[in-house]
Amino acid sequence: MDSTTSSRPIGVFDSGVGGLTVAAELRRLLPHEDIYYIGDTARVPYGGKSQATIERYSAEISEMLLAENAKMIVVACNTASALAIPRLENALPIPVTGVIEPGARAAVAATRNGQVGVIGTRGTIHSGAYERAIHALAPDVRVTSRACPMLVPAIEEGWLDDSLTDSIIARYLGDLVPSGIDTLVLGCTHYPLVKSALARYLGPGIRLVDSAENCAIAVRDLLTRHGIGACEKAQGTLRVALTDATDGFLPVAEEALGLTVGEVRIAAVQR
Amino acid sequence: MDSTTSSRPIGVFDSGVGGLTVAAELRRLLPHEDIYYIGDTARVPYGGKSQATIERYSAEISEMLLAENAKMIVVACNTASALAIPRLENALPIPVTGVIEPGARAAVAATRNGQVGVIGTRGTIHSGAYERAIHALAPDVRVTSRACPMLVPAIEEGWLDDSLTDSIIARYLGDLVPSGIDTLVLGCTHYPLVKSALARYLGPGIRLVDSAENCAIAVRDLLTRHGIGACEKAQGTLRVALTDATDGFLPVAEEALGLTVGEVRIAAVQR
Repeated sequence: MDSTTSSRPIGVFDSGVGGLTVAAELRRLLPHEDIYYIGDTARVPYGGKSQATIERYSAEISEMLLAENAKMIVVACNTASALAIPRLENALPIPVTGVIEPGARAAVAATRNGQVGVIGTRGTIHSGAYERAIHALAPDVRVTSRACPMLVPAIEEGWLDDSLTDSIIARYLGDLVPSGIDTLVLGCTHYPLVKSALARYLGPGIRLVDSAENCAIAVRDLLTRHGIGACEKAQGTLRVALTDATDGFLPVAEEALGLTVGEVRIAAVQR
Repeated sequence: MDSTTSSRPIGVFDSGVGGLTVAAELRRLLPHEDIYYIGDTARVPYGGKSQATIERYSAEISEMLLAENAKMIVVACNTASALAIPRLENALPIPVTGVIEPGARAAVAATRNGQVGVIGTRGTIHSGAYERAIHALAPDVRVTSRACPMLVPAIEEGWLDDSLTDSIIARYLGDLVPSGIDTLVLGCTHYPLVKSALARYLGPGIRLVDSAENCAIAVRDLLTRHGIGACEKAQGTLRVALTDATDGFLPVAEEALGLTVGEVRIAAVQR
């Protein structure tokens, strides 16, 4: 195993396959980096579960990434970013970044009227993590949040450009839009897959902040700051492992993201 | 701990809170029996996961019910019934029953034209378990199946009598109805909560077979056959434990089922 930090892979994890939106952005922005992605499909979704459970699951998956010699951990899951990052930072000997802080930073930069909306799973929204992260940067920004539990299942059905998904979006955002927001944070790594449906409903007056995109930028900055970026001559690879054989959504994500995943390893969680 | 078999509780489990539809039917049909229910909310849903994972989860939860001195195990989850019952029957020293066989038996009794539809999660439908159980009883019955992954999340949102749920039902059943079925098996323990929405869409010509109701009848028969029914003077109780604190759906189920759950124990899965 190569011990030079810079040539070690970036470890990325999510509760399932949704975090591949982050992997796709990392591939685009950092084509020289190797990425080792683990989707915890044996226990997906994380969105409705308690903090104690999410912390334990996140620590277990991070241990698996450490065993793959990861040089940093990217928590490509909003729920785990909201609930487990402090514990991971304390426990892990390598840098950790999530999707919340980068999304909050981008939202503060994007808003002109100081009114930001956030959508995500129940776990992410009830944690208040985006609100805290936004207020830490800009105490005067008003944050309006909405849990959208039906969006992930609709995306996993492959209903990306679909009248039923449009109705679900209208149901959830119907009372968010009149609140006056000019910026909406997509606080779940699945949501970039319905970005165009969301934009269609919201119209041109509301900017969408994509947490996957902003997370990739934060990873690039972190690699530079720690001096652990891969050699620019390297040809990066993407390896994917899942904790349970998945059924159906992986091809949807691959096609929508233009991502070639290749052979998927099935790796049981070790406890 | 009382060692008389008849006074021991009936152990019931599901991936989450949906199996309370079975617990409610058991309460109605067998008011003298104590019921100990475990919902594996730390790992819900089972519907999209592999057989190996479902077998392991089912065995772990059954061990927890044995520790509560259960006299029999009721698998109140179609996915676990479809994938894990043979393994549980081999491993456990007490009787086991699920929801598939009773549902299949009721469907065969209900159909007049020999054309039966089955709806359920991806796991249940892809397992082919209903088809096998129906054909074991009546080889000539034609079975048409359809996975409906969006129905459980809609029910867990509390959208029981809702135009959006009606649209989801129309999407899934739109190509099932023209196939000529006269009977539809609700092959998921959540589905009885949208029985009236399903009946509205299907019209009076199609009979609904409720797996919760038929499972309770099978449990009564099994108790009689083994001579382990509770004393008829006893006042049965319902105790509920969950493997993770749940958020939201339990009150929906309680209200819709007219069930009083009371204090819920949170019991981590022991491995």
